[in-house]
Amino acid sequence: MHLLGLLPRRAWASLLSQLLRPPWASCTGAVRCQSQVAEAVLTSQLKAHQEKPNFIIKTPKGTRDLSPQHMVVREKILDLVISCFKRHGAKGMDTPAFELKETLTEKYGEDSGLMYDLKDQGGELLSLRYDLTVPFARYLAMNKVKKMKRYHVGKVWRRESPTIVQGRYREFCQCDFDIAGQFDPMIPDAECLKIMCEILSGLQLGDFLIKMAWKDVRHEMVVKKGLAPEVADRIGDYVQCHGGVSLVEQMFQDPRLSQNKQALEGLGDLKLLFEYLTLFGIADKISFDLSLARGLDYYTGVIYEAVLLQTPTQAGEEPLNVGSVAAGGRYDGLVGMFDPKGHKVPCVGLSIGVERIFYIVEQRMKTKGEKVRTTETQVFVATPQKNFLQERLKLIAELWNSGIKAEMLYKNNPKLLTQLHYCESTGIPLVVIIGEQELKEGVIKIRSVASREEVAIKRENLVAEIQKRLSES
Amino acid sequence: MHLLGLLPRRAWASLLSQLLRPPWASCTGAVRCQSQVAEAVLTSQLKAHQEKPNFIIKTPKGTRDLSPQHMVVREKILDLVISCFKRHGAKGMDTPAFELKETLTEKYGEDSGLMYDLKDQGGELLSLRYDLTVPFARYLAMNKVKKMKRYHVGKVWRRESPTIVQGRYREFCQCDFDIAGQFDPMIPDAECLKIMCEILSGLQLGDFLIKMAWKDVRHEMVVKKGLAPEVADRIGDYVQCHGGVSLVEQMFQDPRLSQNKQALEGLGDLKLLFEYLTLFGIADKISFDLSLARGLDYYTGVIYEAVLLQTPTQAGEEPLNVGSVAAGGRYDGLVGMFDPKGHKVPCVGLSIGVERIFYIVEQRMKTKGEKVRTTETQVFVATPQKNFLQERLKLIAELWNSGIKAEMLYKNNPKLLTQLHYCESTGIPLVVIIGEQELKEGVIKIRSVASREEVAIKRENLVAEIQKRLSES
Repeated sequence: MHLLGLLPRRAWASLLSQLLRPPWASCTGAVRCQSQVAEAVLTSQLKAHQEKPNFIIKTPKGTRDLSPQHMVVREKILDLVISCFKRHGAKGMDTPAFELKETLTEKYGEDSGLMYDLKDQGGELLSLRYDLTVPFARYLAMNKVKKMKRYHVGKVWRRESPTIVQGRYREFCQCDFDIAGQFDPMIPDAECLKIMCEILSGLQLGDFLIKMAWKDVRHEMVVKKGLAPEVADRIGDYVQCHGGVSLVEQMFQDPRLSQNKQALEGLGDLKLLFEYLTLFGIADKISFDLSLARGLDYYTGVIYEAVLLQTPTQAGEEPLNVGSVAAGGRYDGLVGMFDPKGHKVPCVGLSIGVERIFYIVEQRMKTKGEKVRTTETQVFVATPQKNFLQERLKLIAELWNSGIKAEMLYKNNPKLLTQLHYCESTGIPLVVIIGEQELKEGVIKIRSVASREEVAIKRENLVAEIQKRLSES
Repeated sequence: MHLLGLLPRRAWASLLSQLLRPPWASCTGAVRCQSQVAEAVLTSQLKAHQEKPNFIIKTPKGTRDLSPQHMVVREKILDLVISCFKRHGAKGMDTPAFELKETLTEKYGEDSGLMYDLKDQGGELLSLRYDLTVPFARYLAMNKVKKMKRYHVGKVWRRESPTIVQGRYREFCQCDFDIAGQFDPMIPDAECLKIMCEILSGLQLGDFLIKMAWKDVRHEMVVKKGLAPEVADRIGDYVQCHGGVSLVEQMFQDPRLSQNKQALEGLGDLKLLFEYLTLFGIADKISFDLSLARGLDYYTGVIYEAVLLQTPTQAGEEPLNVGSVAAGGRYDGLVGMFDPKGHKVPCVGLSIGVERIFYIVEQRMKTKGEKVRTTETQVFVATPQKNFLQERLKLIAELWNSGIKAEMLYKNNPKLLTQLHYCESTGIPLVVIIGEQELKEGVIKIRSVASREEVAIKRENLVAEIQKRLSES
């Protein structure tokens, strides 16, 4: 919020005033000229769009406004996600919406074409952030941070052709959790998978499964551990018929693998990971996927992706194709790309597909016909009398000052029925009613909108009584 | 979060693989090629920046990252602001970060030059939103909303030369509250001023004053009420020597005004407003300012601006020049500019200068040497023993599953001292310690980091005991 350009505006105003000053204005001072001008300017603006009949009022392609109804659902879901991140000791942070273009290039492979560039207005070449991971890596390298557990919730922008039906837009929200630093193998990786499970169970979206990209597991074994491709492929045979722990166990029972020192080493990390997942009680949620391919270019290790097992079909609900609702993996090379000496900071993280989750929950509520309250107002201040605005204002100020969420109609003399109807349509639970009678007796009526019961209480007990009722409900 | 472009990536990968495939790779399938390629690409990227020695890692000019320390302060302040907005019955909403350029042009006067335009990448011409008011007006017109009380917290972007010392950046956060709709005069206006007062008192930034632009009051009287300029200027004489209610009262005692029917009408709204402000108990916070000029072009009526009366100087704190910390006013013409038929929706609103408030609070904490916790971790899981990772993992999962915020070190065999030091440096209040002895006896030690007291409790009572302690503290 800035109140800007006082002087330039003055100059500009007096300039304009030469052109716009009405004849009768010649007698007045600068002050008047300016207000006249402002008014004149405004009127000219008012015409502006009418002179352009083909001007269409819309949001940019692939974007949308978020209505109060959307916001209520989002707030609930984001609260759950963020509180899980905090439960695991993550710190919050934020980065600018745009980065130097150079910071983002060569990080996303062919997707880079989907980046929003800013117009060159003199100065730096900028692009809107494409995800929250590259800015995080840039942050770590820039501040020489070698260790950090952080979460980041924010908007990112991608110029894809939007498939709105899946709740995919060009502007969307990401919720990322990442652990940066050199640690003993697979402990942070296991925690990331645990977090995914906690969030997806907490959201009660129905059953889910986390799939690991076998391609990457294999890649790890062959390239990093030097396992012979044919041995890796034999392990691959198991992957196709089993998943998770049982897979690992069985592989160790197969002499062709268990007696192959190389194979055992190659399987080491995988075994370790599943040991930890078992201790976390989530091993059964993890399986391998042959078709899953590494996501963005910066992933260096195993990537994983969470999918809902069955679309959460309620009675009469259209089935939803939601695809993956969370994903993550290792990107040990990314931070090094920003470090002049190429010093690496190993990272593992996850991203919750909140946009799709918002979409699922909204669809569900729609089919259930659930109505959400878009305000939190607790008390409505009403009167049956004319000329009671002053009393209503005094009363509502008292409520606000006691921290009570209160509303009234901005009318001098509203009808009582209109006032009560407003409460019912917006879900306000309590009404306080003040009239001449009450004023004389020093009381206030409290009405429960649901039961329509009314009781008169002493005016001085009003706040206490309301707080009592609100704490009970 | 999208896992993107599987097929295009495949194509691209196999293409690259023609160039990059190592000789021994010829025997392997597409899968392997792809991972090889990904690895190769990554290595080439890793070199990327090293080949550009003059590449500087930074955030764009006038922007900055928000560290966990920043985020903690912001979260606290935004919570207070938003809860006040909700207390007054406002709904939340959001709009895209960018708008059609045409939506924003001719709304900000000469400031338009400060807009960030997006590069024309085919399609629509877009600009980053410059404030939250114009998008709100566009939303109302687009959805034919005639009545709405909403708040909006979000980032906006302005290409000003940043004066970082005042906490002004090119990317900054706005917190807006607006009331749209045709209502009885001055009631919503008075509520906006009440909200400003509630927030500024709640934040305890020291004493403050809300100044009204006399120019605009005068403009209202002359242009809207048709008051003779000389009468308006006589009223102006009062403004210079008095402010607020007393002003209005005295004017009514002056026969030159009180016996002038026109003057009485001209004063009507002003009188009404101050009546309501008096009922709200904030009339003494409001005064007039001759120098204050209307802000952005879309303001049509009285604008107001809140300033801190004395910079909140604590012992040894450098004085701060913070200027205005909140502002608002009427913009009855803006929505009509978007309506094809020019239908107006009168609006009044306010914007809290949170960035400056963040800056003030941060400066204060700095001089006070206050340290903020950047995590909310309640319990740390420690062990004095080697090879106790499995027990720690089982234990911490139990805490997480009970909703307790818990951390441990990602090491197989951390030293107990290292673990306890981590708790002290990050402010974690409780430590649970498990070792062989405890395991044998089926107990767990709970240690208070502050008092360093340790007690052993039954393992099965752990969660209950921790929750009890946390609820007490």
